[in-house]
Formats: sequence, structure tokens, C-alpha cells
Amino acid sequence: MAIIEVTIAPLGTGSPSVSRYVAECHKVLTQEEGIKYQLTPMSTIIEGDLDRILAVVRKMHEVPFHAGAVRVSTSIKIDDRRDKEMTMEGKIRSVNEKL
Amino acid sequence: MAIIEVTIAPLGTGSPSVSRYVAECHKVLTQEEGIKYQLTPMSTIIEGDLDRILAVVRKMHEVPFHAGAVRVSTSIKIDDRRDKEMTMEGKIRSVNEKL
Amino acid sequence: MAIIEVTIAPLGTGSPSVSRYVAECHKVLTQEEGIKYQLTPMSTIIEGDLDRILAVVRKMHEVPFHAGAVRVSTSIKIDDRRDKEMTMEGKIRSVNEKL
Amino acid sequence: MAIIEVTIAPLGTGSPSVSRYVAECHKVLTQEEGIKYQLTPMSTIIEGDLDRILAVVRKMHEVPFHAGAVRVSTSIKIDDRRDKEMTMEGKIRSVNEKL
Repeated sequence: MAIIEVTIAPLGTGSPSVSRYVAECHKVLTQEEGIKYQLTPMSTIIEGDLDRILAVVRKMHEVPFHAGAVRVSTSIKIDDRRDKEMTMEGKIRSVNEKL
Repeated sequence: MAIIEVTIAPLGTGSPSVSRYVAECHKVLTQEEGIKYQLTPMSTIIEGDLDRILAVVRKMHEVPFHAGAVRVSTSIKIDDRRDKEMTMEGKIRSVNEKL
Repeated sequence: MAIIEVTIAPLGTGSPSVSRYVAECHKVLTQEEGIKYQLTPMSTIIEGDLDRILAVVRKMHEVPFHAGAVRVSTSIKIDDRRDKEMTMEGKIRSVNEKL
Repeated sequence: MAIIEVTIAPLGTGSPSVSRYVAECHKVLTQEEGIKYQLTPMSTIIEGDLDRILAVVRKMHEVPFHAGAVRVSTSIKIDDRRDKEMTMEGKIRSVNEKL
């Protein structure tokens, strides 16, 4: 189980608004089963099996091209910890306990 | 007004757990007035005046050194939009409206 | 053809030096054919077929675990442009022509 | 002394080519003294005093706005190591020695 943060941005679209593209990418996630995700103001965070998530992210990367973009910049950050179980909730809780 | 995402990670600490450092960095934010922030499982997102936020992030970057780290990797992503007001809540709402 | 930048960092290794891990990850690249890559002071940049590169990056991500790390933070940035051919050299040249 | 990697991308410019903006940002660097920098296919890497570099990056972030952009996405990664001197050349050499 890993946690991945992903940001997908089309370049060269005529408008500075990209929420239309973000929403289309997000729909890919809503159609998947067994993965948890969370939309933040800067990214989408996904928790689950690493290979499974990477396959989903690969699909999400294609979405802006289908929507007309010709250049897409996708950032993926993988946090993969194998000595203990790690979850999105657990990471937040672990910090809050120390505040 | 800009939105900034920041991740601060010490390298070479003896333990793979970094929540102790994240919590210390976070305390810098709780002492500031007039900036909004949100802790996510992968980062901290801050909204406010760009120069103000960058000064706060600069302080946060020093925290792990005070806590004993000798190498710190800090990632900052700035989303700065000037044709209309942009907020953390507004960005999420804008995507959700299109889902 | 896409260009990908990747950074792979183990957390909690006890030493702030990570070049040993970076070198091991890099060896994965030297064993692949048909992909171009370049080591920079902050990352590795790879050019080639997107799915091919992602498969290689997936292998690279496993390397620090084989070398004893229990937590690995991997950042991947994909620059994928489909209206014209894009290469590492071409991107640099395009900027230099405008300087 | 720290090493910083920076990427500055305008959103919504109408063209997928951003080399014009990258070149303008780069000119800020050529006018500074006492900092080393290197253009890569994915970013600009800068070596020097951390506060000095951050001030320069802050200037670079404004450049696309002067050139007409209304939204700019800037990514900054700081590698700050204080137990020994760290340089761009030294990091590359340290990896190459282990290959």
C-alpha cells in the first residue's frame, strides 16, 4: 500500500482555468473500485496498491488529451513505506498527535 | 493572493517516520495570523499573500535543522493567479461543480 | 515520446548521503536500450516512449528497498507534448535560441 | 550553500510552447553575480546562498506575468545540506564514482 499525490495540468489551453480538465481526470477515479482518494486544492491524493494506482494515474494523464490539450504536465509523488501500514488518515493523525 | 503547497522532509534521520518534524514545522503556521492552511496526507497547503507565505515557508524550512537534521529537502509549489480571486475552497468547489 | 524527470529518495537511512542509492537506481537505466537519459544534480531526466519510461521508473523505485531502505519517496514529472516532436536537446536549444 | 531546482510555467497562454517564458526567466539569472546555474530540459538548477537564490527565484516568478500570463505555476525544490559542502558538480561526481 502506497500513497500517491498527482497533479495533471494541460499547457497552452486558451484559458487559465483548468478545473474542467481536473474534473474530467477525477471521473477516472470515481469509476475505480478499491482505491481511496482525496481532492485537495493543489492535487489529488490516492491510497492503495502502488501498481494499481500507477495504472489509474496513467489513464488520468490521457484525459486532457481527449479533451483537446496537446501538452500535459503531470506530477506524481509516491510515498511508499513498507515497515508498517501507512494510510492517508494515519499520516494526518500521526502529525496531529504531536501538535 | 496565492496558494502554495509545501513539503519538508529531513534526509538521513535514523527513522523512516518524519511526523515529528512535520508537526514541528506545522507549529510555525499555527503561530502566524492571517494565513489559511490545511494539512493533507502529503503536504501542507497555504493560502495568502505570496511574499508573506514564502517568508513563513522559509521559517518552516529551518525547523528540521533545529530538531537535529543535517539535510532537508523542501518542495514548494506556487499557484499564483491574478485575473480573479482564487482560494483553496474556491478551487475545490470549481472542480466539484463540474463532476 | 515524452520527457520524464525522476527523483528517488530513501527516508530514514541514517546517513544524509544518498548517492549510493542514486547510483544503484541509475544502473537500471544503463541496462535499458533505446532510452536516452541525463543525470542532473537534482534528478534524472529520461526521454522516450512514455509507457516504456514509466516501466523503467517503476523498476528504479524498487532499488532502494533492495538496498535496505524501508521508505522511499519518488517524484516523477512527465512532460508529454503531442503536437510536435519534443526532445531533451530540442527543449534546451529552443530556450537558448531566445536568449 | 544550497542547491535549488526551479520550474516556472504559465497556464492558459494559448500556445503549448513555453520556451519564450523560460528564456525571459533565465535572463534574470544571467544578470545576477555569484550564483551558479544550469539549464536542464526540465528545470533550472541554481547553487548558492539559500536566501539569495530564493530572492532571485521570487523575481523569476514575476517574469511570465510581465510577459502577459495571468496564472503562473512555479515549482521549487530545495536541497539544503549543512554537515558538509555540497555543490552541483560534487553531487554528480559522487554518483558517478559509485557507478
